[in-house]
Amino acid sequence: MTADEHLHTEEAIVQGYLAPLAAGAPGAHGLKDDCATIAPAPGCELVLKTDAIAEGVHFLPTDAPQDIGWKALAVNVSDLAAKGARPLGYLMSLAFPLAPTKVWMAAFAAGLGEAQKAFGMHLLGGDTDRRPGPISITPMVIGEVEIGRMVPRAAAKAGDIACVSGTLGDSGLGLALQRDPTLATTWRLAPHEADHLGQRFLRPTPRIGLAPALLKHARASMDLSDGLMKDLGRMCRASGVGAVVDLPALPMSAAFHSVIRIDPDAAAASRFAGDDYEVLSAVAPEFFGAFQAAAATAGIPVTRIGIFTTGLELTLRDAAGSAIDIGPTGWDHF
Amino acid sequence: MTADEHLHTEEAIVQGYLAPLAAGAPGAHGLKDDCATIAPAPGCELVLKTDAIAEGVHFLPTDAPQDIGWKALAVNVSDLAAKGARPLGYLMSLAFPLAPTKVWMAAFAAGLGEAQKAFGMHLLGGDTDRRPGPISITPMVIGEVEIGRMVPRAAAKAGDIACVSGTLGDSGLGLALQRDPTLATTWRLAPHEADHLGQRFLRPTPRIGLAPALLKHARASMDLSDGLMKDLGRMCRASGVGAVVDLPALPMSAAFHSVIRIDPDAAAASRFAGDDYEVLSAVAPEFFGAFQAAAATAGIPVTRIGIFTTGLELTLRDAAGSAIDIGPTGWDHF
Repeated sequence: MTADEHLHTEEAIVQGYLAPLAAGAPGAHGLKDDCATIAPAPGCELVLKTDAIAEGVHFLPTDAPQDIGWKALAVNVSDLAAKGARPLGYLMSLAFPLAPTKVWMAAFAAGLGEAQKAFGMHLLGGDTDRRPGPISITPMVIGEVEIGRMVPRAAAKAGDIACVSGTLGDSGLGLALQRDPTLATTWRLAPHEADHLGQRFLRPTPRIGLAPALLKHARASMDLSDGLMKDLGRMCRASGVGAVVDLPALPMSAAFHSVIRIDPDAAAASRFAGDDYEVLSAVAPEFFGAFQAAAATAGIPVTRIGIFTTGLELTLRDAAGSAIDIGPTGWDHF
Repeated sequence: MTADEHLHTEEAIVQGYLAPLAAGAPGAHGLKDDCATIAPAPGCELVLKTDAIAEGVHFLPTDAPQDIGWKALAVNVSDLAAKGARPLGYLMSLAFPLAPTKVWMAAFAAGLGEAQKAFGMHLLGGDTDRRPGPISITPMVIGEVEIGRMVPRAAAKAGDIACVSGTLGDSGLGLALQRDPTLATTWRLAPHEADHLGQRFLRPTPRIGLAPALLKHARASMDLSDGLMKDLGRMCRASGVGAVVDLPALPMSAAFHSVIRIDPDAAAASRFAGDDYEVLSAVAPEFFGAFQAAAATAGIPVTRIGIFTTGLELTLRDAAGSAIDIGPTGWDHF
C-alpha cells in the first residue's frame, strides 16, 4: 500500500486514524462501541456546542488538512471558552464525497491531535459517511462548568462596558492572502506579518485561558465568529439593550495596522467580516479593571470598545463621535 | 408571506421552527445562547451518539419531511436504546443546499416534534448552514444511564444466546416499495401489509422499552442499522467470538412472509440489507427466559436466532444445518 492510496472502509478510517485521538478517554471505549459515555465532575454540568465546517464555505480546498483539522475543533471550542467552560471531549461526524487518501487522513488527524492536545480534550465518538457535496466536518464539543455558572449571551445591561479579547480583522485579511498571496507584496507586509494574518485565518486559537476571568467578572459573553457588529447585535437583541462602539478603540494587530495604511478598503472590509474567534463580553464598570487584570494574568489582552446602552440601537462612532453607517456586515450562514 | 416562501435567515429557521422543540428544556436556553447545558441525574452518566442522514443516501428526495425529521432522530435514539440508555435531548446540525421553504421546515419540525415526544427528549441546540450537496441532518443525541452500566458491544461470550427484537428485513422491502409502488401489486400485498413495510422504512421505532430488560439481563447489545450479518460480525469481532445463526429462526413480519412466498429473491436481498433498527443482544442462556419475559412485558418480542461460539467465524445455517454462503451483505457507509 502506498500513502496516497484511498481509504475505502469506515473501519480503516476510524481504527487507523481516529482511534489514536480517543486514547486516554475511557468514555470513548476505543471508538469500538456504539456510543460514548461522559459525566461532569461533581457540582458541574456539561456545556454542548456543534458547529459544522465545510469545504468551499468555511475552509478552502487548498487549505492544508492539518489546518482543517485544527480549525474544525478550534471554532467549536471557542464557544466553550467564551461561556467559561473547560473543554473535555468531542464527537465528530465526517462526510466525504470521495474516499480520502491516507495522506489526507493522516494530516487531518494530526491537526486534530495538535488541537485537542492544546485544548485539553479527546475524541469520544462519531460517524463517517460518504456522500456527494463538499467535505464536511461536524464536531460536537463537550465542556463543563459549575452548575448554573455558564456565562450567558443574554445578560448585558445598559452601562456595562463592551470589550473584546485580542485583535479584530486579522482573519479576514488572512483569508484574502490565502486567496491571493501577491497581496503580501501589495500590502508591503514583512514575512512575519503575512504569516500572522494567515495563521489567524488557518489556526484560530480559542481563548480557553480567559474562562476563569469571564466566570468571575463578566455579565455576558460570546465568541466572535460572524463579525463584531453582527455578533454584538445578537448580544444586544438577546439582552434587550443597545450599544455604542468606538471605531478608533477597536484593537488591531501590527500587521492589520500595516495594511490599513496602504489599503484601507481591504482593512475596512475585513474588520467586521468574521472568523475572529475572539471573545466579546459585557462587564460592569466596577469589575472591568479586575477583569482586565485577570485576563492579562492569563496572557490575554482585553480592550474596551464601547458601552451598552438603553434602547436597542447599535451605533458605531468615529473619533469625532459621529455615527458611521457601515451597512450590513459580517458573515451570514444563509 | 406565503407558506411556500423560502426561509433566508438562520434566525427565521431557528426561532420560527426549531425553538418550539426546545421549549421545556431549561438547558436549551431557548436556542438563544451559544451553547446548551445538561447534567445527568445523580449516579448517572451521559451516553452520546451522532449519526448523520443525507438526502439520496439515507432518505429519498421524495420522502415526506415529517418522515425525514422522525427518522433523523429515531436512527440515533435506536443506539441509545440498545445501550440501555434513556433519551434526554439532542443537538442538531442542518445543512441545506437551498433555503428551505416554510412548508418544508414546518413539516420537518413536526416530524421531529412527534419523534421527540415519543422518545421523551428535547432539542437543546445546533447549527444551520447553507452549503452545496444534499440536505444533511446530523443529530447528536444524549441519553443517560447509571454510571458504568451502558450495555457494551464487545462483551458477548461463547455460549451466549444471540437474539433480536422485532422482525428483520421489513425496511429493505419498504424502501423497494417507496421506489416502485407497483411492487405492492406484484407482491399481492394487502394495503395494511404494504403500509407496514413502508412505515418500517420511513418511521423506524427505536426500542426504548427494551432498555430496562437489556440493563438487567443482556451481556452485550447493539442496534441493527447496517444489516444483521454485518452488525453481528462487528459484535463478534469486538467480543473475540464467533456465531452460528439459523436462517429459519430469523423473525419475519406477516408482510415479509407474504413477499417471501412470491418474490424470494427480493425478500432475501432485503433480509440483511439494513435499516432494521432492531436490537441484537448476547444473553447468557440462564438469563434468556427472564430477558424474553421482561421484553414481553414491554410489548417487545425477542427471538433467539443462534448462538455465540468460540473462534471468530460467522456461520449462517439452513434448516438442515448446512452452512449458507450469502456473500457480502448489508450497508457499507463507504
